[in-house]
Amino acid sequence: MENRDIRLKDIRGFHIGGALHELVGFKTEAVARVEGDAPTVVDMNGDHMIGQMYATHYRQAEPEFALPLMLWHGGGLTGACWEDTPDGGKGWLDYFLRHRFDLVISDAFERGRASWPPYPQFLAQAPEHRSLNAVWHHFRFGAPGTYPPILDAHHARQMAYPGLQFSIEHLEQFGRQFVPRWVGNDDLALKAYGALLQKMGPCVVIGHSQGAYYALQCARLFPELVKAVVAVEPPTGLGAADASLVRCPHLFIWGDNIHGKNETWSRYFRVVEHYRQALSDTGTLAEVMELPELGVHGNSHMLIMDRNNQLIAKLVQDWLMRIAS
Amino acid sequence: MENRDIRLKDIRGFHIGGALHELVGFKTEAVARVEGDAPTVVDMNGDHMIGQMYATHYRQAEPEFALPLMLWHGGGLTGACWEDTPDGGKGWLDYFLRHRFDLVISDAFERGRASWPPYPQFLAQAPEHRSLNAVWHHFRFGAPGTYPPILDAHHARQMAYPGLQFSIEHLEQFGRQFVPRWVGNDDLALKAYGALLQKMGPCVVIGHSQGAYYALQCARLFPELVKAVVAVEPPTGLGAADASLVRCPHLFIWGDNIHGKNETWSRYFRVVEHYRQALSDTGTLAEVMELPELGVHGNSHMLIMDRNNQLIAKLVQDWLMRIAS
Repeated sequence: MENRDIRLKDIRGFHIGGALHELVGFKTEAVARVEGDAPTVVDMNGDHMIGQMYATHYRQAEPEFALPLMLWHGGGLTGACWEDTPDGGKGWLDYFLRHRFDLVISDAFERGRASWPPYPQFLAQAPEHRSLNAVWHHFRFGAPGTYPPILDAHHARQMAYPGLQFSIEHLEQFGRQFVPRWVGNDDLALKAYGALLQKMGPCVVIGHSQGAYYALQCARLFPELVKAVVAVEPPTGLGAADASLVRCPHLFIWGDNIHGKNETWSRYFRVVEHYRQALSDTGTLAEVMELPELGVHGNSHMLIMDRNNQLIAKLVQDWLMRIAS
Repeated sequence: MENRDIRLKDIRGFHIGGALHELVGFKTEAVARVEGDAPTVVDMNGDHMIGQMYATHYRQAEPEFALPLMLWHGGGLTGACWEDTPDGGKGWLDYFLRHRFDLVISDAFERGRASWPPYPQFLAQAPEHRSLNAVWHHFRFGAPGTYPPILDAHHARQMAYPGLQFSIEHLEQFGRQFVPRWVGNDDLALKAYGALLQKMGPCVVIGHSQGAYYALQCARLFPELVKAVVAVEPPTGLGAADASLVRCPHLFIWGDNIHGKNETWSRYFRVVEHYRQALSDTGTLAEVMELPELGVHGNSHMLIMDRNNQLIAKLVQDWLMRIAS
């Protein structure tokens, strides 16, 4: 099955959401845009589309699952995070395409092909450009303060958590995926996700990190569209559970080196578990999968691209088949 | 053939090129990144990957053409420009996939999923955010000064060139595709394209606008890898022709409303024709396809997503089959 061809009716990329804004306050200036040509006046004042997102829809020739899976990336990344791994391995895109799922992979507002609006004309401030140093402990590659003094394969492996499943020898390759991110744009991001959901109809949302938080939000905002949620390491829950979610099963997945190792993720875990319990209490099927408890050790926050990511995709698939049956 | 399934061995997205840079000079500050969580310190100083690009490689189960086609987008756009049209029609991605070509669709340095580095810490200045007003005449949707006073389907069609093939009623949808662009980054963009070519091996490059200029450059820089170039409305040529290009056929494609209608594009056309003549003079097959001369009228600068874009894709395919035989 892992090697059979991918047979699709259709692959369509498109943009959706956002609205027209007239922006003013740009200085006009002459810029030499074309090699050898005279400078031409650049005037940015005028109508701009802002708030849209980007998605690619893969439609199977013979789907083996009734609903499309939406794959939503985390903060500082794009839909590309589902497509490969730092050591050149297969992503979840490959797994779910070959297992005949319809898929939608997207870039959220202000990330990747979704584009980003100017600051300070629209957004108040500059974005965060994440350094490799900043993700080292936060993505649970290693203990605090162990970012390698020399960034080569040997030092990276030596400083990382023992048994780490993330291919830390290729940390630079992972760094090629980073895109800038702003904070405070949840409303715009969610509005675009809402437009995407309305276009696609009933579906399952699989979100990673910030994308998992958006998935939890959208399940509550669009209970008629989001039929199940797989939340991979969300940074927070939604507090109280909404009774409208009773027909929307939730699965929460967590990697390794959280408890007693990473204060931030221990805190996130507790807040999310509190939300899962609230869901359970209102009658929603809300399960948690802590990979180390299943004997699967060494997974980082980037477990969707860790070395054993195909095994974890299979666990997700098994859960989906179980709730659908 | 237009409706047969797409059968692929593989779809792989990946990043390539760029290098590690240590950036300093960022202020550290506490930011509330997660809803309901305490602010955490954001420190951007450290190691960043800069200069990479993004690509998706579609490998046919049964390719009917020996070389992969690389589709390179123009300025202010991303690889998404090959994937659909503003009125929801099919892009060149669909055409060439269904006709069993291996394809690579990419985002150039500082565009889309390729990410962009911070300014002023790496790039000197802010990028250009193109307005819809700014592309109206430049992309040859209408005469100078005819940007519609009210941006609805009726006014847009009324103000546009008669017979325009671009679905101007959906100008806003086109605007969703725009991404910011810088000037002066040709060297970095070309370096990443070089890394992509080296990874992919011998290929045909189809470039649009700025992407066509990069295609002409790469044909000269990598004569052993670029086996043919289709340059759709490049803004400039390379001056003198290089004898190493003698085995690399070139096709130049132009839409309508250039001569006597658009000063900028008339100038670009002349400069590019001069380069084509230089190629011809050194023995390179260098052909020009002016669509109006073939009886195909009304095409804008965005002819790859005009209403008749499938017909133009077929003209490209016919040319490729001819030079390959």
